[in-house]
Amino acid sequence: MPSFMRVAISGEETSGVPFADLHEASDALIKALLIRAKYMKASHQSFPTITKRFLRRVCDEEHDYLAEDDSIVHQKKESILDHPIDAPSGHGAPFECTMEPPANYHLQVRNGVFQEEEEGEDENDGSLFAPPFTLAEFIADQNLLFALVADGPIKSFCYRRLNYLTSKHDLHVLLNEIREAATQKQVSHRDFYNVRKVDTHVHASSCMSQKHLLRFIKKKMKNEMGVAVCKLADGTSMTLQQARFDCLNLTAFDLSVDMLDVHCDRNTFHRFDKFNAKYNPVGESRLREIFIKTDNYMEGRYFAEILKEVMSDLEESKYQNAEYRLSIYGRSRDEWDKLAAWAVKYNMYSDNVRWLVQVPRLFDVYKVNGQVENFEELITNIFEPLFEVTNDPSSHPDLHRFLQYVTGIDSVDDESKPERVMFDKDAALPNEWTKHDNPSYAYYLYYMFANLVVLNNFRKARGFSTFVLRPHCGEAGPVHHLVTGFMVGQNISHGLLLRKAPVLQYLYYLSQIGIAMSPLSNNSLFLNYQRNPLIEFLGRGLLVSLSTDDPLQFHFTKEPLIEEYSIAAQVWKLSSVEMCELARNSVIMSGFPHEIKKFWLGPNYTKEGVAGNDMSRTNVPDIRVAFRHETFLEELSTLFHTLKDLDCMDAAFN
Amino acid sequence: MPSFMRVAISGEETSGVPFADLHEASDALIKALLIRAKYMKASHQSFPTITKRFLRRVCDEEHDYLAEDDSIVHQKKESILDHPIDAPSGHGAPFECTMEPPANYHLQVRNGVFQEEEEGEDENDGSLFAPPFTLAEFIADQNLLFALVADGPIKSFCYRRLNYLTSKHDLHVLLNEIREAATQKQVSHRDFYNVRKVDTHVHASSCMSQKHLLRFIKKKMKNEMGVAVCKLADGTSMTLQQARFDCLNLTAFDLSVDMLDVHCDRNTFHRFDKFNAKYNPVGESRLREIFIKTDNYMEGRYFAEILKEVMSDLEESKYQNAEYRLSIYGRSRDEWDKLAAWAVKYNMYSDNVRWLVQVPRLFDVYKVNGQVENFEELITNIFEPLFEVTNDPSSHPDLHRFLQYVTGIDSVDDESKPERVMFDKDAALPNEWTKHDNPSYAYYLYYMFANLVVLNNFRKARGFSTFVLRPHCGEAGPVHHLVTGFMVGQNISHGLLLRKAPVLQYLYYLSQIGIAMSPLSNNSLFLNYQRNPLIEFLGRGLLVSLSTDDPLQFHFTKEPLIEEYSIAAQVWKLSSVEMCELARNSVIMSGFPHEIKKFWLGPNYTKEGVAGNDMSRTNVPDIRVAFRHETFLEELSTLFHTLKDLDCMDAAFN
Repeated sequence: MPSFMRVAISGEETSGVPFADLHEASDALIKALLIRAKYMKASHQSFPTITKRFLRRVCDEEHDYLAEDDSIVHQKKESILDHPIDAPSGHGAPFECTMEPPANYHLQVRNGVFQEEEEGEDENDGSLFAPPFTLAEFIADQNLLFALVADGPIKSFCYRRLNYLTSKHDLHVLLNEIREAATQKQVSHRDFYNVRKVDTHVHASSCMSQKHLLRFIKKKMKNEMGVAVCKLADGTSMTLQQARFDCLNLTAFDLSVDMLDVHCDRNTFHRFDKFNAKYNPVGESRLREIFIKTDNYMEGRYFAEILKEVMSDLEESKYQNAEYRLSIYGRSRDEWDKLAAWAVKYNMYSDNVRWLVQVPRLFDVYKVNGQVENFEELITNIFEPLFEVTNDPSSHPDLHRFLQYVTGIDSVDDESKPERVMFDKDAALPNEWTKHDNPSYAYYLYYMFANLVVLNNFRKARGFSTFVLRPHCGEAGPVHHLVTGFMVGQNISHGLLLRKAPVLQYLYYLSQIGIAMSPLSNNSLFLNYQRNPLIEFLGRGLLVSLSTDDPLQFHFTKEPLIEEYSIAAQVWKLSSVEMCELARNSVIMSGFPHEIKKFWLGPNYTKEGVAGNDMSRTNVPDIRVAFRHETFLEELSTLFHTLKDLDCMDAAFN
Repeated sequence: MPSFMRVAISGEETSGVPFADLHEASDALIKALLIRAKYMKASHQSFPTITKRFLRRVCDEEHDYLAEDDSIVHQKKESILDHPIDAPSGHGAPFECTMEPPANYHLQVRNGVFQEEEEGEDENDGSLFAPPFTLAEFIADQNLLFALVADGPIKSFCYRRLNYLTSKHDLHVLLNEIREAATQKQVSHRDFYNVRKVDTHVHASSCMSQKHLLRFIKKKMKNEMGVAVCKLADGTSMTLQQARFDCLNLTAFDLSVDMLDVHCDRNTFHRFDKFNAKYNPVGESRLREIFIKTDNYMEGRYFAEILKEVMSDLEESKYQNAEYRLSIYGRSRDEWDKLAAWAVKYNMYSDNVRWLVQVPRLFDVYKVNGQVENFEELITNIFEPLFEVTNDPSSHPDLHRFLQYVTGIDSVDDESKPERVMFDKDAALPNEWTKHDNPSYAYYLYYMFANLVVLNNFRKARGFSTFVLRPHCGEAGPVHHLVTGFMVGQNISHGLLLRKAPVLQYLYYLSQIGIAMSPLSNNSLFLNYQRNPLIEFLGRGLLVSLSTDDPLQFHFTKEPLIEEYSIAAQVWKLSSVEMCELARNSVIMSGFPHEIKKFWLGPNYTKEGVAGNDMSRTNVPDIRVAFRHETFLEELSTLFHTLKDLDCMDAAFN
């Protein structure tokens, strides 16, 4: 236990609200936490062990989803010196892997969710990997959370607790910042620049800076004039030279960042449509097609080349890492194969990079264009290849190889678009969803989640990696997206609207849901920098990290992630402790493998509290970690106190 | 004339105040402008030709300082294509120059100001290069300005005019921003990244980033362990290895940015003393001495080496330039020679760099330490070598060479320190100033200015370059520093307090005094970013530029100047037009030679309005330049309208 100035609250009623209110709020909040615990377990996603331990003590019934997780094996405290800070490189032949023999399951989508049936077995016994919940149950849980989030007394209770957390943090900093800074100085070699940090939310197609993209386009215009880059309607191909004169009518020399016009400005604020248009260099969708798509006439060669340049910059920086989003749309069945073929062909691997797959919520567009008939088709396009490759890796060999480095699925779109239909028991089933309207956020998320549960069960049984769901959530639009995110997401991106939903914010704190925040992106689109709640969330102890979202649109320097940290540090006067805490959070919530995180954060990083912190790697003072941990335990005991006399605290402190 | 949406105000009384008030205010403001015009002329500094033209029309008496300046020769509109954008490089032998024969003047300081007398002539005829004003006159002018700045009705008038300028600018942007952006896109090749920008205020000893300094120290610790780096009290020298163990007791590997501890944090806000201490790496003044001083046991070799690295980064960036401040303290007569020897020995030249010399206001410290007896000694130490080298270049050959690249003098210190004695007619003369108190800001500035006037007269007569005065001014402390700055400074650094002094702000606008602003520096020391008036000043049309001040203390990325622009762009949602305007302002107000500015801004950049703008180099739309110019002319005519029926407007528009 590090020694520092602690704040203790004494007296009988430490929560500051009447006992009856506390009791009622506790009861409701614990119900909510149980809901999340259940869905996280069902989907092989994680739930904090500490909160789970508290839940176990108060639950009369046995819930298997509260069982201790034996998948995380705490290692004996290895000598830290024996464990180098750099993970061994995966370079060489990253996409080589064994093709396990097929498992011979039947695949079949029923009511929008895939089911697995062993070949030859009874058709009706289709529940081998089926979710342990029904649609009706999910909707009931969702409605329970809706009610809870809107409940006046619970709102007041959570609001008070959050403010309490802020005050406690402020006191901690006032009393301990000098000591914390002193311990940072004692750690040899380590500082903010050489702690690992992960850009937890960034889109591959906008991960390069505007200047970089401009340079790349110019280079190609100079050196590869004659290369055929796209196909015309009449079937002939078009060279870069032709494309240039068609679109631009200017030389490589002429082109400037101003013409490229991909950067956000005052006119994109609250205009997600204009923001989307910024993905088209020089306002030409053809150039977007040529340069930043994986699936085009050139099989995405240019995009692969520029991404490689970005990845090599990351490698050179050594400590910066990123989780790039690549798109799967669900318009056709071969998207996964094409994407995987692209990745394998161009050897799209870096030790500093892992992939997430983002699925845009654009059913209405595909429906209007006649690309899909009903919502189930979209689901099938997205998931069938994944089930097939899980069943028989050699059926999609490239996909099997590529999936080693895909850690999760993201759901993306403009959340501020109005939603006509709520997701409730009367919602049409996916095969009946044939209207032109887009389904709601919750509808999308539910069907992606339910299929992910089946997929993860299947993959687990096959000994393959599983995926997490990390949707964009709470960037704009209705607050209830955050309820969905709470139920199904391992982490979320943005979470801005938590500032308007104290109950949810408190629940996100209690279940330590990672939130990848991008204040520069928000500043251009939805919320001015000074009003961004990141600094408040961080102070309260929510698991927030900093991410860039779209360097192409938002950043100016050659190092967008450092720029993001720098601006946050300047605007909010962050200390080195806070910057390193953000960096550590980003690694914790990232999808990099457990084995690599052990190198980056220390071999015992999964342990609770100070035991899990290796300051020689994270540069986060033990004092800060102890404060966070003790505050978290006290908060949980206050909450659970009314329900049972607990001895969790003792357990926790050992 | 570019075509754009113009805002015209019609009606008889366009100023919005009663005619009597306007008349009174005009009268007073014009007096103030005449004062500045006089002192600028006296010191060979510049005053805007437009304002001067208006002044000429209303003045009944002939003032030689209102005469048209024939030193700026407007060039015929050269073909812009014939005039490349890159100035020819000065590399090669930048410090070679001819040593003009001596002029044989006597040098003598009288009442704190140097006077030149031709050898053998009558001792009393000492006014050959003397200032065309007396101390009493200067103080009378200062007092007149003090009264004017505090005058209620004039304050209200200026406040209204400034708000009018803001509103007019806001309207202009609303109506024209799309058109402006479109013209930027039409300019081939040019964008914000490749317009010239100058870091107009940055100290040489803190111009590297913390990470850079750390890397440099580590490198030296590894490779130059045995090099003698400083001298001990007993006369023996100490090697880097010894210094390391003495100060640090750790290896090069151990050292981190946290230990280096040169970055500002929450604890430096309103603590200039703590900020100054941050110049000591690892809190050790010995390391400051070894690594970032020109005058040490190693003759500043390390400092020269790291500065060369920074300068080579600038050259690589091509479009970034800087005006680094080097220190002259005035403690001894040989400081200039040492500094110049250092510069020449290490060939401290870059096409992207010019030097300013900063004089800290530390008389009280030297006096306590017995280094100087009275204030006149300080003045003598600073100026005598300059007069000697002007008289006979071969008397200080290195200094003569070095001065080619020194463009001005800065005055620096914590402005928030209390000042006990005002500068008035009762102030002790420099040779009588023997008390331990520090003289006031105005006292320092007056004596530096008066000597600079003599020096510039002398140098002009000799055909040598002259110097400008560019003091730190209005960063903190009393507002009246800005009055002094208005009287004597070509440009100022900071000018934050103009936000509290509408009359001065308006006068700075009317005389287009350059203001090098450093919002990140202010954010760490004196004023939170969001409250920084830069954006307001820029909107109103004051000549502001962005500068970094101390990258070592404030910045995080490898490109401090771009970081400074980036943060401003994000926080204030600057458009590319505004960023390019800031960049253009920085070149205009910088001390780079006229010949080089012609390459950077266009051969006709000294012309008024659109004729002086070469958009293919500046990327500032003609529309914006026209708006600024027309607004400036209208503002001057409103002000001068009451006094005479003017035909300046016609002249101006031709």
